[in-house]
Amino acid sequence: MQSLKHKILTDGTVNSHEILKVDNFLNHQIDVKFLNEIGKEFRERFYDVEIDKILTIESSGIAIATATSQYFDYVPVVFAKKNESSNLDEDVYKSKVFSYTKNKLYDVMVSKRYISSGEKILIVDDFLAKGGAVMGLIDIITQAGAELVGVGIVIEKSYQDGSILLEDKGIRVESLACIESLENKMIKFK
Amino acid sequence: MQSLKHKILTDGTVNSHEILKVDNFLNHQIDVKFLNEIGKEFRERFYDVEIDKILTIESSGIAIATATSQYFDYVPVVFAKKNESSNLDEDVYKSKVFSYTKNKLYDVMVSKRYISSGEKILIVDDFLAKGGAVMGLIDIITQAGAELVGVGIVIEKSYQDGSILLEDKGIRVESLACIESLENKMIKFK
Repeated sequence: MQSLKHKILTDGTVNSHEILKVDNFLNHQIDVKFLNEIGKEFRERFYDVEIDKILTIESSGIAIATATSQYFDYVPVVFAKKNESSNLDEDVYKSKVFSYTKNKLYDVMVSKRYISSGEKILIVDDFLAKGGAVMGLIDIITQAGAELVGVGIVIEKSYQDGSILLEDKGIRVESLACIESLENKMIKFK
Repeated sequence: MQSLKHKILTDGTVNSHEILKVDNFLNHQIDVKFLNEIGKEFRERFYDVEIDKILTIESSGIAIATATSQYFDYVPVVFAKKNESSNLDEDVYKSKVFSYTKNKLYDVMVSKRYISSGEKILIVDDFLAKGGAVMGLIDIITQAGAELVGVGIVIEKSYQDGSILLEDKGIRVESLACIESLENKMIKFK
């Protein structure tokens, strides 16, 4: 997606730990008009599939999934929760995920009421790196007996092994921008 | 907002702790078409103000703010973060908030790059109860030297004192549904 690559180059920054920061349009401050473009692009990429629900994970995936739903006939969005809360059902599907950016292991949870057997699920998320978060969501989909139809990623870090891990499992991954390297703070696309 | 009251009555449930659960359309599973109706309603309520940014707090406010931005000429959404992350700037505005649903004190943080002096800010959130989260956001707006133009709330628990607290400070609060009582698990609107 050319406009996304352009936006990453103009608005993204790479910090000293070689982390790509896109928090001025994607995951802290949000450019909603641009997110709608991303949603449209996901619809084009997944033009041939029928989906019942979009699944994502709090927090950064929520805005992306919300914008995307509009181009998939407003199918419901479900976001997996990372934190226990008195508002969450006790009866949940649960999976463990390790976050490298937060350096901790956490549970991801979805109420059993919101994913059902046989439902066709599209996962969307902001980043795909080592694939931990997506694997957790896939585990939840499997527990529910639902069907994963694909994974839509805004930015793939292709130098990490998440996309290979998923494709080896026969999972369809559509990444709108693929980063090959951030070495020397230079953003290089695949 | 009649359609919201209707939705709360048909889809909402009150659990044994007298907590109103609306997680099948608002804060776990999300009905995006309905969120757009909520966004339109906020525009009507705040028809007379100019705003530069919408500020909310992760996670439940994000989808609401994203939908709402579309009716305010796609102004940027900024969501305050509750958790430290290596992705977050070190230079942040920070405030302390006590969460009654999670029973803990936490920091809310916004990068100093995303709220600037003089900007006109609309806060939106899913619930207003005792006002802790909103007061934290207002503290951040004040630290930044920005201007709060109002607070848009989807569901106000009018039997708690958040709205009185805010109105006593001269803050304009627009709540789309006001709950007077959840006694005996009955949802009673004001």
